[in-house]
Amino acid sequence: MQVKVLENILKANDAIAQENRTLFQQKRVLVLNVMSSPGSGKTSIIERTVKTLGKQFNIGVIEGDIASTYDAELLSKLDIPVVQINTEPFGGACHLEASWIRNAALSFDLEHLDILFIENIGNLVCPAEFDLGAAKNIVILSLPEGADKPIKYPLMFRKAQVLLINKVDLREALKFDLDTLFTNVQQINPQLNCFPLSAATGEGFDAWTEWLKAEAGKK
Amino acid sequence: MQVKVLENILKANDAIAQENRTLFQQKRVLVLNVMSSPGSGKTSIIERTVKTLGKQFNIGVIEGDIASTYDAELLSKLDIPVVQINTEPFGGACHLEASWIRNAALSFDLEHLDILFIENIGNLVCPAEFDLGAAKNIVILSLPEGADKPIKYPLMFRKAQVLLINKVDLREALKFDLDTLFTNVQQINPQLNCFPLSAATGEGFDAWTEWLKAEAGKK
Repeated sequence: MQVKVLENILKANDAIAQENRTLFQQKRVLVLNVMSSPGSGKTSIIERTVKTLGKQFNIGVIEGDIASTYDAELLSKLDIPVVQINTEPFGGACHLEASWIRNAALSFDLEHLDILFIENIGNLVCPAEFDLGAAKNIVILSLPEGADKPIKYPLMFRKAQVLLINKVDLREALKFDLDTLFTNVQQINPQLNCFPLSAATGEGFDAWTEWLKAEAGKK
Repeated sequence: MQVKVLENILKANDAIAQENRTLFQQKRVLVLNVMSSPGSGKTSIIERTVKTLGKQFNIGVIEGDIASTYDAELLSKLDIPVVQINTEPFGGACHLEASWIRNAALSFDLEHLDILFIENIGNLVCPAEFDLGAAKNIVILSLPEGADKPIKYPLMFRKAQVLLINKVDLREALKFDLDTLFTNVQQINPQLNCFPLSAATGEGFDAWTEWLKAEAGKK
C-alpha cells in the first residue's frame, strides 16, 4: 500500500518533469539540478560559477531549502534572478518535486535565460528519486564526507551525469586519497564526469566552467 | 491523500517506538539514536566511544545503511555485537523505522547489554521524523558542514537532546566560528547539550563520555 502510493507520486512527478524538460528545451535554457549532502558547497559553487560566467550568460537560480532564505539572499547579491522554495509548509519535504520547479520556473523570463541552476535540498538520498526535468543532474561530494559515499549512496551517483568533488583545498589536512574515490565512482557509475575543485580557492574551476560553457552552447 | 498516508505511517511507527522504549527500559539498556548528514562521523565517534568505554560497559550497535556493510565490518573488529540493517531492499529508505529496530534489537542479548547505539542512515532530514524508541536522540554536525545547519534543518536539531560537534581539529583550517554555531543552536533548541570534539584526535571526548557514563548509570 505504502509502496503503491509512492509509485503513484513518482509517476505523477515524472510526467510533470517531462513537461518541464520540453519547456526548457523550447526556451533553450540549460537546467541543472544540483544535489548533495548538507554543507557540501552547493551555494558556494553556484556563487563562484556565476561570478565566473555571469558576464557571458544569463543565469538564474531556484533555491530549495526546508527553512530559511540565507542562500537565496546571498545569491541575490550577484544581481541574478533567484526564486526561493521553502518546503517547511509542505511538511518539511526532504527533496524538490517537478511541480514546484514548474511553478518557480514560470517566475523567470525564460526567453532571456541561458542557465538555470536548481539548488536542491541538502540530502544525498531522497532528491535522487525525483526527476525535475533538468538537462543534467549534478552531484557534489566534498572531501570531508569521505571517499566511501558513492558505494553507500549509490542511487544519487547513478542518477548524476556530473560529480563535482569540492573542498580539494583540504586534501592535505584530511590526507584524502582521491584515487580511492575515483575507484568507488568507477564501480557505481563509470560514465560520471568528475571535476575536482574548490569553491573556496577556485582551484579546478576552469575545467568545470569549460564543460558548462560547452553544454550551454549545445542548447 | 499523500499526507494522510504519511500520517498513518508515522502513527504506526510511533506506536512500535513506544513498545521499543518500554522494552529497552525493562532490559535496562540505554539506547541512543545517532543521526547526521553523510560523512559527519557517526561511525568514527561510535568507534572511539567503544574504545574508551568498552571495558566498563557492554556496548552493541545497530548499523543502518542504504547499501554496503563497511561500517558494520569496521565496528565488528572492536569485538562487540553489531547488527546491520540495509534499506536497499526497502526501496533504499532514507531513514530507519521502529519496526526494523525492534527486529534488530531482538538479535542482541539485551539482558547483558548496557548501551545500544543505533547508527541511522546519513541524512539530516528524514530520520528526525521517525521515533525509534531510543532514550536519547544524538545529532552530529561536523565543522565542514557549516554553522548555518541548525537554522536550515530545524526539525533534526529540535528532536535531539545531544549535539556532538565533530571535526573540531579542522577549526583552524576552516576558520570556523563556533560562537555562530552556538547562537544558531540557541535559536532552534536552547536545551541541546553540546559537545565539541574530534573523533580523529580524541579532543573533547572526555566530556562526552562522562555524560554517557552518567546516563548509563541512570538506567
